Amino acid sequence: MERELLAWLRDRLPPHPRVPLGFGDDAALLEARPGWRMVVTTDMLTEGVDFIVGEHEPPRIGRKALAVNLSDLAAMGAEPVAAFVSLALPKAGGLELAHALYEGILPLAAEFELAIAGGDTNSWDGPLVINVTAIGECEENRELRRDGALPGDAILVTGEFGGSLLGKQFDFTPRVREARWLVEHCQIHAAMDVSDGLSLDLSRLASASGCGAALDLGCIPISASARVFADSRKDGRTALDHALSDGEDFELILAAPPKQAEELVRSQPLGVPLMRIGTFVAETGLWSQQPDGKRIPLSPDGYEH
Amino acid sequence: MERELLAWLRDRLPPHPRVPLGFGDDAALLEARPGWRMVVTTDMLTEGVDFIVGEHEPPRIGRKALAVNLSDLAAMGAEPVAAFVSLALPKAGGLELAHALYEGILPLAAEFELAIAGGDTNSWDGPLVINVTAIGECEENRELRRDGALPGDAILVTGEFGGSLLGKQFDFTPRVREARWLVEHCQIHAAMDVSDGLSLDLSRLASASGCGAALDLGCIPISASARVFADSRKDGRTALDHALSDGEDFELILAAPPKQAEELVRSQPLGVPLMRIGTFVAETGLWSQQPDGKRIPLSPDGYEH
Repeated sequence: MERELLAWLRDRLPPHPRVPLGFGDDAALLEARPGWRMVVTTDMLTEGVDFIVGEHEPPRIGRKALAVNLSDLAAMGAEPVAAFVSLALPKAGGLELAHALYEGILPLAAEFELAIAGGDTNSWDGPLVINVTAIGECEENRELRRDGALPGDAILVTGEFGGSLLGKQFDFTPRVREARWLVEHCQIHAAMDVSDGLSLDLSRLASASGCGAALDLGCIPISASARVFADSRKDGRTALDHALSDGEDFELILAAPPKQAEELVRSQPLGVPLMRIGTFVAETGLWSQQPDGKRIPLSPDGYEH
Repeated sequence: MERELLAWLRDRLPPHPRVPLGFGDDAALLEARPGWRMVVTTDMLTEGVDFIVGEHEPPRIGRKALAVNLSDLAAMGAEPVAAFVSLALPKAGGLELAHALYEGILPLAAEFELAIAGGDTNSWDGPLVINVTAIGECEENRELRRDGALPGDAILVTGEFGGSLLGKQFDFTPRVREARWLVEHCQIHAAMDVSDGLSLDLSRLASASGCGAALDLGCIPISASARVFADSRKDGRTALDHALSDGEDFELILAAPPKQAEELVRSQPLGVPLMRIGTFVAETGLWSQQPDGKRIPLSPDGYEH
């Protein structure tokens, strides 16, 4: 089946200037770029955890498998170059399923000018598994790491949070273009994408940077989906609770010097809203900043793998 | 569980000069090397197809998952740099299983000076799946591709073939050092590793190069395991049949100019035997070369994915 899939793919994979050799050999070749570093991430999606075949359409599943990796590249400020797709396909209808997955993968790859440069295709008696490894590149020492936030930096976020189960968990746009704009035009001290919940991931970024985070809870951008959840689920969780903990928002958290942050929030240069939701502080931990200057401890909440 | 595994790994992963940032951020950073290209390969191993938990010890399974990727890097003549390991682990005993897998992965990584620079860890209700993506590098335009064999080139192979099910399928040494020696000291026109069977993979290399391959069947290096299979299985397949079609030998097929080949076979510079088994020919297809100069067509045989 791998041979049939490769033949089908060959007609659909455009050439890429950085990939002199893609599918079909023992490995692919990528051109290195002097003064830039390679940025590499990998994510595995499994049936029943990340998607349900039969409930979610295969092109959306395929798209998500690539998009979560692009979101990781964005979190580093990297420009996408190539991705590698491994599939474990159920024996019945495997080839058709692979085609349908690629119907979601290929347009997203084209949108971000990324080569699908290789992969591995397997048939087995188990459920669908997709692993994507994405490779990007960033100017040396301009990469957006997690560990660079400084006390006093503003906490900025792109977009809105909560309720991604209503659709955004599949159909989100990875913030690659936004991150590249920031790398090229600003001094951003640290960044991370939100996959496991805003409060949990923010606490991880702060912890990696050896500082704390104080949130202005009134400033959290709450999505319409989070409000729908709060209204319909009747489980005592508010829309804010959903925004703080739901996960799979795939928005960016950024640490920016206060003046830079002020200018960014004023000018809104990204096309997607950029909001300030708090301040990194010297005292470790996650905090709710009160109007009177006091801080109340918050419990990070989200999805632990 | 991912957090526990990361904590366990951090104590066991030595720093690597080419990897300024490994596990723990959204992605890893690799230093590019001017004048060299990145070489990227990925392989997914699944329970019941590539291994059986309970029958094969987890460290051997983990080792194999990395080794098959190193074999692909060797087939390109690449020097290993880093690998990324994604796991889908059964919920019961998943962390212990992950530790045991890494007990096979880490020593092999150390042996080939490769960084384990990232990965993804998942728990699910399915069987074990391991995906490894390995990244190496090779001097630009020195890469050993499949499509460079010329009619008249000698067909060289490392090692012996057949019967790898008796153990070699797990415990093989990827021919990385041998391939690097060849890239640095010789003009090799094409290379490929044998994963699906000598005759099938040779026919693929010849086909990619637009030529054929004529084998001297008396010269095929037949392993002791292939002979054991032929003696014990009583299914009419000879030891030569096993050598030609068993697969998972993870030896190299090389296309070398005849004088270069003669010198290599005479001097045996690799530490592992290097044998000439035939000649690439203008006429496409796979052939058995007869002493009288005639050629009899052979059917490529092996494992089709």
